[in-house]
Amino acid sequence: MNRRSISFSEPTPVPRRSNSYATSISSRNPRNLTRRVSGLSTNDLEEAEAPLDPVEHAVAEEIAEIKRYEDFTTIDWVQDAARENLRRKARRQERAGFFDQKGRLAWRRTLWEAYDAGQGWIVVTLIGIAIGLNAAFLNIVTEWLSDIKLGYCTTAFYLNESFCCWGVENGCDEWHHWSGWWPINYLLYIAFSTAFAFTSARLVKSFAPYAAGSGISEIKCIIAGFVMKGFLGFWTLLIKSIGLPLAIASGLSVGKEGPSVHYAVCTGNVISRMFSKYRRNAAKTREILSATAAAGVAVAFGSPIGGVLFSLEEMSNYFPLKTMWRSYYCCLVATAVLAAMNPFRTGQLVMFTVRYDRDWHYFEVIFYILIGIFGGLYGAFVMKWNLRVQAFRKKYLSKYPIVETCFLALSTAVICFPNMFLRVDMTESMEILFLECEGGHDYDGLCDRQNRWRMVITLFLATFVRLFLVIISYGCKVPAGIFVPSMAIGASFGRMVGIMVQALHERFPEAAFFAACEADVPCITPGTYAFLGAGAALSGIMHLTVSVVVIMFELTGALTYILPTMIVVGITKAVSERFGKGGIADRMIWFNGFPFLDNKEEHTFGVPVSQTMTAHPTALPATGLTIQDVEAVMADTKFQGFPIIEDSDSKILIGYIGRTELRYALDRAKREQLAPLTSVCTFSSPASGAPRSSTTSAPPVSFDDMDPSSSAAVDLSRFVDPTPLSVHPRLPLETVMEVFKKLGPRVILIEHRGRLMGLVTVKDCLKYQFQVEHAHEADRTMVGRKERQEERVWGLIKGAAGWVGRKAGRGGGSRVGDGSPGTPTASGGNATESRSPGLDGEVELEDRRNVV
Amino acid sequence: MNRRSISFSEPTPVPRRSNSYATSISSRNPRNLTRRVSGLSTNDLEEAEAPLDPVEHAVAEEIAEIKRYEDFTTIDWVQDAARENLRRKARRQERAGFFDQKGRLAWRRTLWEAYDAGQGWIVVTLIGIAIGLNAAFLNIVTEWLSDIKLGYCTTAFYLNESFCCWGVENGCDEWHHWSGWWPINYLLYIAFSTAFAFTSARLVKSFAPYAAGSGISEIKCIIAGFVMKGFLGFWTLLIKSIGLPLAIASGLSVGKEGPSVHYAVCTGNVISRMFSKYRRNAAKTREILSATAAAGVAVAFGSPIGGVLFSLEEMSNYFPLKTMWRSYYCCLVATAVLAAMNPFRTGQLVMFTVRYDRDWHYFEVIFYILIGIFGGLYGAFVMKWNLRVQAFRKKYLSKYPIVETCFLALSTAVICFPNMFLRVDMTESMEILFLECEGGHDYDGLCDRQNRWRMVITLFLATFVRLFLVIISYGCKVPAGIFVPSMAIGASFGRMVGIMVQALHERFPEAAFFAACEADVPCITPGTYAFLGAGAALSGIMHLTVSVVVIMFELTGALTYILPTMIVVGITKAVSERFGKGGIADRMIWFNGFPFLDNKEEHTFGVPVSQTMTAHPTALPATGLTIQDVEAVMADTKFQGFPIIEDSDSKILIGYIGRTELRYALDRAKREQLAPLTSVCTFSSPASGAPRSSTTSAPPVSFDDMDPSSSAAVDLSRFVDPTPLSVHPRLPLETVMEVFKKLGPRVILIEHRGRLMGLVTVKDCLKYQFQVEHAHEADRTMVGRKERQEERVWGLIKGAAGWVGRKAGRGGGSRVGDGSPGTPTASGGNATESRSPGLDGEVELEDRRNVV
Repeated sequence: MNRRSISFSEPTPVPRRSNSYATSISSRNPRNLTRRVSGLSTNDLEEAEAPLDPVEHAVAEEIAEIKRYEDFTTIDWVQDAARENLRRKARRQERAGFFDQKGRLAWRRTLWEAYDAGQGWIVVTLIGIAIGLNAAFLNIVTEWLSDIKLGYCTTAFYLNESFCCWGVENGCDEWHHWSGWWPINYLLYIAFSTAFAFTSARLVKSFAPYAAGSGISEIKCIIAGFVMKGFLGFWTLLIKSIGLPLAIASGLSVGKEGPSVHYAVCTGNVISRMFSKYRRNAAKTREILSATAAAGVAVAFGSPIGGVLFSLEEMSNYFPLKTMWRSYYCCLVATAVLAAMNPFRTGQLVMFTVRYDRDWHYFEVIFYILIGIFGGLYGAFVMKWNLRVQAFRKKYLSKYPIVETCFLALSTAVICFPNMFLRVDMTESMEILFLECEGGHDYDGLCDRQNRWRMVITLFLATFVRLFLVIISYGCKVPAGIFVPSMAIGASFGRMVGIMVQALHERFPEAAFFAACEADVPCITPGTYAFLGAGAALSGIMHLTVSVVVIMFELTGALTYILPTMIVVGITKAVSERFGKGGIADRMIWFNGFPFLDNKEEHTFGVPVSQTMTAHPTALPATGLTIQDVEAVMADTKFQGFPIIEDSDSKILIGYIGRTELRYALDRAKREQLAPLTSVCTFSSPASGAPRSSTTSAPPVSFDDMDPSSSAAVDLSRFVDPTPLSVHPRLPLETVMEVFKKLGPRVILIEHRGRLMGLVTVKDCLKYQFQVEHAHEADRTMVGRKERQEERVWGLIKGAAGWVGRKAGRGGGSRVGDGSPGTPTASGGNATESRSPGLDGEVELEDRRNVV
Repeated sequence: MNRRSISFSEPTPVPRRSNSYATSISSRNPRNLTRRVSGLSTNDLEEAEAPLDPVEHAVAEEIAEIKRYEDFTTIDWVQDAARENLRRKARRQERAGFFDQKGRLAWRRTLWEAYDAGQGWIVVTLIGIAIGLNAAFLNIVTEWLSDIKLGYCTTAFYLNESFCCWGVENGCDEWHHWSGWWPINYLLYIAFSTAFAFTSARLVKSFAPYAAGSGISEIKCIIAGFVMKGFLGFWTLLIKSIGLPLAIASGLSVGKEGPSVHYAVCTGNVISRMFSKYRRNAAKTREILSATAAAGVAVAFGSPIGGVLFSLEEMSNYFPLKTMWRSYYCCLVATAVLAAMNPFRTGQLVMFTVRYDRDWHYFEVIFYILIGIFGGLYGAFVMKWNLRVQAFRKKYLSKYPIVETCFLALSTAVICFPNMFLRVDMTESMEILFLECEGGHDYDGLCDRQNRWRMVITLFLATFVRLFLVIISYGCKVPAGIFVPSMAIGASFGRMVGIMVQALHERFPEAAFFAACEADVPCITPGTYAFLGAGAALSGIMHLTVSVVVIMFELTGALTYILPTMIVVGITKAVSERFGKGGIADRMIWFNGFPFLDNKEEHTFGVPVSQTMTAHPTALPATGLTIQDVEAVMADTKFQGFPIIEDSDSKILIGYIGRTELRYALDRAKREQLAPLTSVCTFSSPASGAPRSSTTSAPPVSFDDMDPSSSAAVDLSRFVDPTPLSVHPRLPLETVMEVFKKLGPRVILIEHRGRLMGLVTVKDCLKYQFQVEHAHEADRTMVGRKERQEERVWGLIKGAAGWVGRKAGRGGGSRVGDGSPGTPTASGGNATESRSPGLDGEVELEDRRNVV
């Protein structure tokens, strides 16, 4: 079948039966090659200025809509922008026409135009309100679910502890624990946790597999132009909004911030799709998605500016200032709505209000550096091991998502209940840890001098147990983020350091080291160490700097500590960069093999683009192929598009056609023109494509020897992009990658002296990069050892599961049995199947995980 | 002379005397055209992989250095990046060599490498420290100079009021006013102000004309790649650092923030030049400049994160995350040094510590909106009139910078002394206005109930007098910023609104509108209105959002007011966008005609690039021209570079050579090879340029009929960029502009089927944009009226000056006479002359101001 594709590897084409005239015409007409092209005719240049054909315009929009729904492709930003410009121009011309006629309908027109211009703001406002409301709802539900695990309100079952005991601190009589005897409480705690986790996982699996996980890495790719159908759909939004409170309340070591970004972006996508302006235009939608990602963080942390910066620093590979302004507005609306709803009843947006009255001392910088180093190490460690767990999960556990989640929730509950910092909600535990000891706040003797060493040990355990739990939990099939768990870990570590420093000071108050402290006054504030630790861990896991600093302030209002925060985050960043590039979101992208060029990385390959290009792409000659031939080429190859060349001898590049457009054009021709399969397709019209009309006197092609039935030529030229981006084969690869990153074309053609030499896509660049970077690392024995380890762990798990299954089967535990390894295999397989994209080249990219 | 240039306008070249063989060879050798190029030979591809020739490498670096010093050109970022990559690769190879030999010097090598890798951080640390020290010095000097206008310290003359009266509020006995009788104080105040202004202006004029003004717009252009020799030099740094305190202390309505950015960037430039890594590489330097711009804002406001965001939002048209990280670090170091120096002796970085304990109420949003609208209108009004004043200044006053400045300082002092808010330093007045009335702060009865209407009037006057002063002062020839004056104006307006709202509330405490207020407790905090007003005005003048919000927090720590601040800034932004795009820095760029493509703007031209390209650029044929011919072409044209084509018939594009490189190459050839003027230059070597060796059997060119003396061919091929960016003539202009903005080439060639069609530069795009946007606006009668108005104002000024001159001549005022219109004309002319760049095309761009 392959011989049908016109490939460059055959310089002297062998005559073939089905499409022999395609090549024979051109070889019989050598004048094509000697024809002199003396510049563009004036006519040709003016043609582009002519008013748009409305039919053509409609067609272009139709394609634009089709394209958005093609799964696992990448949007061509260059074409998209060009199309948008055409659309705007058309609208301007149309408007000019309206102004001329001054009809009765002028005011309606004006109104419509005002609406059209303000549409963007209306959409963003609606989205902001929806996100704010959703966030308030989630906060309320999460708190209630978390509290219900420990007890219930006697006045009204739907109240959580703080509403039940309104105005009273540290519990009240209306709030009852489930039982006076702690083992019952323990068991109920475990049961509730597992039930919540089960519900969440079940919902995700049955209705919206995409709702699992944090979603940040996928959204990064989507904003960069990768199409994942359904990832931002209504069902994902709904299930994420229901599953998230359940997952958080189940006590799993997962946070709400990542999922919060996901549901915010879903909201943005769902609402903006209702407006034609956004349905049609991917660039506009990208703007909205960036803005909603910002709003997601803003409502999760109550940190509007932090949200904007997060979107800027983490989410968007391209962030024009207009997007910043949209994000700003979206965050403002969403947080204002959230503040008006006032879910925490604190009257403030600030989540943890702290007042660090004491200033910091220069000697403390040493401990800040320690905390910073911890943050960096934490990030590197968690990323490394979490990715290994994820690889293991993908390989062995993908069929049992519900069992896995339930098991995780169960064990988390069993382990966490005894530890006072692990038992409560992570947000609550952070609040406790951030507080100063002065001012009457005290939680279970955290500030007591005699408890000090017990606290240090408890905090130490809390830190490392949580760390282990985060590694195994992040990535399980419920909505799950990693921000808050990281911060909680950092806070407990920080507080531990703080308490130790305090103890040190109290032991040696006269030491020269503590000279800056005033006598007989508390000098060290352990709460600030917790605060800094939280910032460090967040920065370590996400590899962010400015946004973390701003988020930490907006969370607490501790502006006096701006320099310490900056120092800690700076150290963390410096340490974590030693252990590799990119935060967890980037690693997940890489792990999943999405085609994403990270703009944080700088590469030095020192090779020309010709090293990595597809050297002999399947190109279509401008004329000569029948519909049948073209369909055969399409069936044979999986390329997303085809360069158009003048003929396969000269290989003069004249355009590029995407697979989608070609498919559409052929179907249309067959449907509307009833073109037979033998009609000849022409991809270049004399007027628009090659400026041949003005230069040649001889007829361009002689059709003498053609079959008369095929003389009905099908003109596909208007589906061809006549100006694809093309570069010289010796252009450095780095420059080409810059073009991909900054301009965002789907494909770049390689042209030398007008002739097509090759074609390069983002994936080609990524493949090359991967080869170069892992040329030495890919140690086979190492991979083998890892695989054996994984096998052994899986064997252990299977053994344990079998044992539990036998026990449970005898005991008759119906709930756990419902999610037992046997039943959900088929649907579980589907769920994960639909997550694994059918990309060509995916296999190579997926192999990455073996060399982690 | 023009006939020597090989231009496309002559398709059939007429034989000429001097370089007839250049064209005759190619026309006699038609095989060139029919020759079939069947792809790049493998040889050709591998050639790029071969190790670098060290000599060639050294030459490339030499050119890189030369290029940096060519004034008023633009850096080609694409080439710069490519060169940097080559350099890195060379270093890597070199290193690999060292690893192999394992010599005794290995450890030195390791050390050197570590130094080389850490050099960036060392440089940034040094720069940060220098900026922090300089800022602390400036703060101390400015405060002292400001206070000396009002009185002196009896204990030690070098102490300012607050140090003199350490620990005492509201003055002390040690601090003496100059006299007990206010007219003497008034006169001394005026005299000091004028003297300071004179000194500052004199220094600027004599030593560093570039030190005048704020410098932000120029730095924006420099960061974008425009070369302005001396703008960031040592002298500018020195004079700016000395002149700035004088200018501020003179009481002129100018701020220190803009100049602070300028001196910070100068510091960065001066220090980084000491390191070879930065001297050589413009892209690296750009990173440093962005980082130092951030540090400049950071130290000016004590706002490290605000600085980073300012650099991101305002300064850099391209801000990769690596730059953000550098900026973060630089800001951290600079502010830490400043905090350690502790110039305000508050022990805090926060400039104005406020504690707004009362939360805001939803009904106040109405007034916030009012303040937001004021901010937008303020910005639009000031920009419009300030630009007119600047145009007037450029036209009439450029010869009298010192007189002008002295006159401004004099009149400012005369006007401002009677107003309590205008008399004191702007920073101080803001501090007063931001304060709450509770807590014992009171300044001259600002909080007194009975003073209320007097205060409103005083504040109203302060607002509008200052506004007028800002319009006429910003742009005068001393170091002068516009941030703080704007904030002061906003603060006085805001406080006025606040006092009125407070009065309203006290008048109608029972009104439904004020229902949210608790009874018998102060409800409105006028200080918060001042705070919001300052933010609004700052945002209005600069068109910034996120950075203003963050700067306002870091200035005051008023985190409770995050939503009001965001609302106000959002309204301001929305209003100011009605009045045109871009803040004052962008307007100044436009006004000065710098070649800067603003990435904030979106354009819809709907035309192909061929509409705006230079259609027949002067191109050089790859071979055939003698040195003499090339020199003639260079002498005839002012283009910054020349495309290289195969021959002038086929016009096949094979490369591009910059004027600088060509100049250098020719000089080198003449110097080193002693090449006669008749030697033939070849711009393409068979190995690197065209892949002809593998395809043609016939010798490429026959030299039969050549003059034997010219047979010594000079090979210039290694100075040619063989892979210039080239695009299709029908590519939309918008896409080409995106390429300029995002990739930053100096020139883009237009190629169609391998043939050179034209050439486009940023300036071409800007010219086209200007034509399109002002096609309708450029109303000639309007311009005429403006000119007549300006003439009339100038007539008035001349008359007044003549009268004052006559009076002064009789009275014998020597100081003012020293700067009288007569004397400084010549040198003043020089000073401004050196500011007006010798750009070709400047005339067209400068004409913009006529249509403002």
